[in-house]
Amino acid sequence: MTTSGAAGVLASWRDDFPRWYQDVLEKAQLADNGPVRGTMVIRPYAYAIWERMQADVDARIKATGAENVYLPLFIPQSYLEREAEHVEGFSPELAVVTHAGGKELTEPVVVRPTSETVFGELMSKWVQSHRDLPMLLNQWSNVVRWELRPRLFLRTTEFLWQEGHTAHATAEDAAEYARRIHLEVYRDFLQNTLAIPVLVGVKSPRERFAGAVNTMTCEGMMGDGKALQLATSHELGQNFARAFDITYTDAAGTERICWTTSWGASTRMMGGLIMSHGDQAGLRVPPRIAPIQVVVIAVKDDERTVGAASAVVDELAEVGVRARLDARSTPGFGRRVVDWELKGVPVRIEVGPRDLDAQQATIARRDQPSKTVLPLDALRTAVPGILDAIQDELLEQGRRRLNANTVDVASIADAAAAAATGFARIPYATLGEHGEDQLAASAVTVRCLQTADGGVPVRDDELAELFAIVARSY
Amino acid sequence: MTTSGAAGVLASWRDDFPRWYQDVLEKAQLADNGPVRGTMVIRPYAYAIWERMQADVDARIKATGAENVYLPLFIPQSYLEREAEHVEGFSPELAVVTHAGGKELTEPVVVRPTSETVFGELMSKWVQSHRDLPMLLNQWSNVVRWELRPRLFLRTTEFLWQEGHTAHATAEDAAEYARRIHLEVYRDFLQNTLAIPVLVGVKSPRERFAGAVNTMTCEGMMGDGKALQLATSHELGQNFARAFDITYTDAAGTERICWTTSWGASTRMMGGLIMSHGDQAGLRVPPRIAPIQVVVIAVKDDERTVGAASAVVDELAEVGVRARLDARSTPGFGRRVVDWELKGVPVRIEVGPRDLDAQQATIARRDQPSKTVLPLDALRTAVPGILDAIQDELLEQGRRRLNANTVDVASIADAAAAAATGFARIPYATLGEHGEDQLAASAVTVRCLQTADGGVPVRDDELAELFAIVARSY
Repeated sequence: MTTSGAAGVLASWRDDFPRWYQDVLEKAQLADNGPVRGTMVIRPYAYAIWERMQADVDARIKATGAENVYLPLFIPQSYLEREAEHVEGFSPELAVVTHAGGKELTEPVVVRPTSETVFGELMSKWVQSHRDLPMLLNQWSNVVRWELRPRLFLRTTEFLWQEGHTAHATAEDAAEYARRIHLEVYRDFLQNTLAIPVLVGVKSPRERFAGAVNTMTCEGMMGDGKALQLATSHELGQNFARAFDITYTDAAGTERICWTTSWGASTRMMGGLIMSHGDQAGLRVPPRIAPIQVVVIAVKDDERTVGAASAVVDELAEVGVRARLDARSTPGFGRRVVDWELKGVPVRIEVGPRDLDAQQATIARRDQPSKTVLPLDALRTAVPGILDAIQDELLEQGRRRLNANTVDVASIADAAAAAATGFARIPYATLGEHGEDQLAASAVTVRCLQTADGGVPVRDDELAELFAIVARSY
Repeated sequence: MTTSGAAGVLASWRDDFPRWYQDVLEKAQLADNGPVRGTMVIRPYAYAIWERMQADVDARIKATGAENVYLPLFIPQSYLEREAEHVEGFSPELAVVTHAGGKELTEPVVVRPTSETVFGELMSKWVQSHRDLPMLLNQWSNVVRWELRPRLFLRTTEFLWQEGHTAHATAEDAAEYARRIHLEVYRDFLQNTLAIPVLVGVKSPRERFAGAVNTMTCEGMMGDGKALQLATSHELGQNFARAFDITYTDAAGTERICWTTSWGASTRMMGGLIMSHGDQAGLRVPPRIAPIQVVVIAVKDDERTVGAASAVVDELAEVGVRARLDARSTPGFGRRVVDWELKGVPVRIEVGPRDLDAQQATIARRDQPSKTVLPLDALRTAVPGILDAIQDELLEQGRRRLNANTVDVASIADAAAAAATGFARIPYATLGEHGEDQLAASAVTVRCLQTADGGVPVRDDELAELFAIVARSY
């Protein structure tokens, strides 16, 4: 989208998206492979974006009343045998510690693939009376699932995430809370902060999380038309509470089984950010999540130019803009511009001797090919508005791509064909479980089920009236 | 210190400090043992304190110019053989993953005891030119060191910490940076935010971190007179850079070896907070770190009382006070007071029907035995000042204890005797390495070396002029 000197730096976004993705990770200095296969090094620039994601999501989670805890990395192997479905879901993915303290352990311990079972044990202890409900807990941590085909941020052996686990007195309260998390935390964060338009719906019975009675999902469309699941929220009914004996005494003194939920989002969102907004020149970071919103480049490294560029940075900081000075003497101007484009900084302000003679600066928006010029004294009032406009434009571009590449189809064959380049929308009554099997053969899956107007279904029993969004996915 | 109904809830602070500590952890709902021996569950209230610690320390670290990264949990076993001294320091403490993905691994991987070796490998790659220096990196993560005698927060198999690793062009720059971290990040945070007075000095050659040429430490005195090391900062000279081949090309084109530092602090600070400020009624949390600074108790649960108490909470929130309403109908008032005292909330405001008749509220400071009364409309102006006074008073009480229990001695025998109840200060020339051996027999160690006026020594070669602080320690 930008006329950029970076065009040759990256593999073709259009022709070789997977390679382009790897190139962006390397050239924008986002992530590296760790020394153990499948693990990941998150470099400072990407980690700064992740920290902002974490802070935003965390504030939203806390606004729902949940509290954070920290549970141990190590889980006794016996815990994972507690809930049969759970074990089947994870056992090939487990990393197992057999030796510690210089000796072989009598019982091997597993590195958590999730803390679900430990939450179960603790909630069983902590929930006693109806006065303890709802119990709303969340954890930020690393988890490990051994990956045979790792891909940085998208599928790594170790990743960072949050997992929420809650217990409620009634099915209604659990359903309402899970929905609130899904819409007010995940959907709103993804759309309003990350500027990624998402389709929100429920998983089909086949794609549902093991043990869940309902799984909600946020699905984004990546630059290559494939889907990425960005967050999921589960109603677990009483299945989980029954397995872990999470019960409470109601006001009348009767012991009852709780209704639980769980929900999570991970560093995979970083992959989604890159693949949603990236273009041929590199990453494009939406202003609200950008650690650096504006880079001010001193075109020359003489005292006058650097002083003026530095003054612009200070002025912008005063109005709350995260601005960074680039007054490096090497590399040259062109190479520095390419670097900042690769990193996707939303606004670049160039200050050179000729600009200063005219008391102005040159403004380049990362989402637009052309540059504009503004008087120096107009920057502090103009830049915040420009950042808002970029935030809106990135979301709008995403919406346009999503709409342009989602087609309504009436047959399974048409759905499979459409999924080669984007999403297809098909009545679930036309598709059915049999249709899901057929699509699976060409690696196409139901990403979510929605109501006719694109809303999130409230109950499974409307299944025949729902529409399925099908796509290839990461 | 407080005249409290909680007196019988906890073991005696004076007579059985270790048991008192365990009781506080349980009764204030701070932490639990995890299912694998030596691991820890950090409960919501303690985790909220830890989050505030993290945010404060993180802001200070970033103010020095360092950036955060995230490195993998798993380290190839071969990495730890790279630096011989390193291996000897850690190998009995390592947890080793031998099976993953359902198979035995060809090379076992170690769960990081620190990320030092991975930082070494990465810095070797990332540092090329003098323009890349200083490289200032930090990581927040979990680490694992198998503990035979675990104690919650103080010594756990898994703990949370930050570890900083930096590379510099010169010895002077490395030394200056390590000192800045030690004083502006650790000392200032511990004293100004946690209200823990610390002795700051350097470790004796015997107590120094393996591979370091200088180790700075912050040592606090706990309620029982024992020392707790709360943070350490190391100058590693060129030892580490040589082992990991961290070199740079200087402006003249010559390849040079870097000078590195490392520094860390952990969830152990939570243990320090509890053992520094706790009393017979439970924890006492300094206002600056307190997730709840003020609890407003509705003495009765009728509408008028709850409404008035709730209005107080809102008013306090408006002036930036973290206030929490307690309008529970059960347990009774006395039990609720005991709960909040156990949790160490700095200020308790009691609002009852009689208070309301008089348009006033009752104020109880957690650091004082008596209560006072204030007009309702004076709270918003008075409470912030009361919180500041409590912050100062907790630091002052700590200072008094530290001073009262630190004695100057002139012989090794006197040092050992004094260390039974507190700290002893002895000229290092009198003590020497031989004296350190003698003291070690009674589990007394040199906590740090200081200059005659209590300052942090700048160089080792003044050793004979320094004073040693010796004590028993955690």
